[in-house]
Amino acid sequence: MDGDRPRVVARDERPTPHGAMPVGSERAAWSADAIVAAIAASARASLAAARLRTADLEAAGCSSPGPLDHLTGVVHETPNLAGFRETPLAAMLSSALDGVRVFVDRDTCMAAIAEGLAGAARGARDYVYVTVSTGIGGGVVSGGRMLRGATNTAGEIGHWPVAFAADASRPADDGLPRCGCGSFGCAESLAAGGNMAEAFGVRDAEEVYAAAVRGDARASAIVTRAERALANLAVGLANVLNPAVIVVGGSVAEHQPAHVLEPMRRAIAERAFRAPANAVRVVPAALGADVGTIGAVLEAGERASGGGDWFL
Amino acid sequence: MDGDRPRVVARDERPTPHGAMPVGSERAAWSADAIVAAIAASARASLAAARLRTADLEAAGCSSPGPLDHLTGVVHETPNLAGFRETPLAAMLSSALDGVRVFVDRDTCMAAIAEGLAGAARGARDYVYVTVSTGIGGGVVSGGRMLRGATNTAGEIGHWPVAFAADASRPADDGLPRCGCGSFGCAESLAAGGNMAEAFGVRDAEEVYAAAVRGDARASAIVTRAERALANLAVGLANVLNPAVIVVGGSVAEHQPAHVLEPMRRAIAERAFRAPANAVRVVPAALGADVGTIGAVLEAGERASGGGDWFL
Repeated sequence: MDGDRPRVVARDERPTPHGAMPVGSERAAWSADAIVAAIAASARASLAAARLRTADLEAAGCSSPGPLDHLTGVVHETPNLAGFRETPLAAMLSSALDGVRVFVDRDTCMAAIAEGLAGAARGARDYVYVTVSTGIGGGVVSGGRMLRGATNTAGEIGHWPVAFAADASRPADDGLPRCGCGSFGCAESLAAGGNMAEAFGVRDAEEVYAAAVRGDARASAIVTRAERALANLAVGLANVLNPAVIVVGGSVAEHQPAHVLEPMRRAIAERAFRAPANAVRVVPAALGADVGTIGAVLEAGERASGGGDWFL
Repeated sequence: MDGDRPRVVARDERPTPHGAMPVGSERAAWSADAIVAAIAASARASLAAARLRTADLEAAGCSSPGPLDHLTGVVHETPNLAGFRETPLAAMLSSALDGVRVFVDRDTCMAAIAEGLAGAARGARDYVYVTVSTGIGGGVVSGGRMLRGATNTAGEIGHWPVAFAADASRPADDGLPRCGCGSFGCAESLAAGGNMAEAFGVRDAEEVYAAAVRGDARASAIVTRAERALANLAVGLANVLNPAVIVVGGSVAEHQPAHVLEPMRRAIAERAFRAPANAVRVVPAALGADVGTIGAVLEAGERASGGGDWFL
């Protein structure tokens, strides 16, 4: 541990094996197997680098896209990753790692835990972690407890719908991009990096921001739409959840704070109720790209030792 | 008590004294005084009808629009009621009622408590109460506890923004009505009865629905817009809060279930993630117009006896 933050003793990163397989296709199961095999291989490479074996491990943490059930370790579906559909990720990974106990949770919940215990929300009992990256996700802590819901999938704030077509003579999704989750109007579909890039026909959201700076009208419109979606999301978070802190992480937030954190702050100041607006700070995440890893280790450690009730 | 439901032993109803005073005007304080005096007079009339005096009371419950802080009893502001601005309602009412202990909470929180203890959400640990009436409000119970937030104003789901102008060349609120809270795009501004009536230029939302049935295009557009706003709200509630039950009350929901509950159910089935969609039932409220009164009595009873931690 480095203060409250676990120390990284070895690291192995590799691309997710995924092709053009649509979620739910017959090849989905194959894809899940391939992903689990890659995670296990990566874990073994890390262990080797640290001169450890699986038998030396007390437990392992695995941060996954969701929605998923962290108690059963089953991933229900993954809008931005083909291959997972009711996949028993914790059990599969445990098998692939000689039976070590594996604790799975949604990437954004583990990030929320990390930012709460060792990052920008330390000390807060009511906070929201938001990531604006390829997708948009989050985790909600209220009254000192992670908000889980009836079947443990709560907190999917990227799929909070913030827009619909106002013209009643047109369909409700008129002019709105389809979200990876199958819906429309989701904050993610309008303001996530992957979705912005797709709308502009490029690979990376940074190209959209750069084009907007050069005066490209189409890029500017995509950026404006993203800012408005984030503004609605921020006002809703303040009014509905009344957090003391909104921690905003993710690559897009990190590179474009003026287009992510600033519109959120402005919208809360201008449009949320006074009381929750005065109570909340919108701050950048403190733990950077390792936030999911740190959260996974913190959560696995707590759960393995029988603690961590506040986030279960 | 009648089962879990307190029995109404006397009743006094009177119109709220309010004129055309904008919230925040200098006359606001006068207006709050007048409202408190009217509540106290009504309470005394009820007591007289039941042959009781204030000295016979263990405590009193008062259900108020919000946002407010139920622990301090201070009402911060009230979008649909001129006169309250940082008003110490519990203290004022206690003074007006010979010092009886008064427990104030947001009307929708008290309604949520009533529906949870004695109504449509009985037994659920994760549920949302939504009222679609003059305004839209709610209360969120998660993991068996009322979601309160950092300063006790959480749950204002009517002010969850579900729309913005997609046309980047126009302002974000282009074509959208101003909400009573000062913002735009709020579910309330688009789907509450008072707002629908105002958009159509009539006194009651029922006139809008009737005109839509007659084929009035403008009324139909307002109804469609309201349904889309409720659809977005419902999908967001399912994805973000993962409740087992969404209890929908309020006069508009009661009279127009096909335009309120049905679009919410349909949207969740079609657009929410599978796991939370399968976990949730959208049901009508069970306690009718007395829900706020019943909740106020239940909450006051619990708080007076030192209990009720789950909703504090």
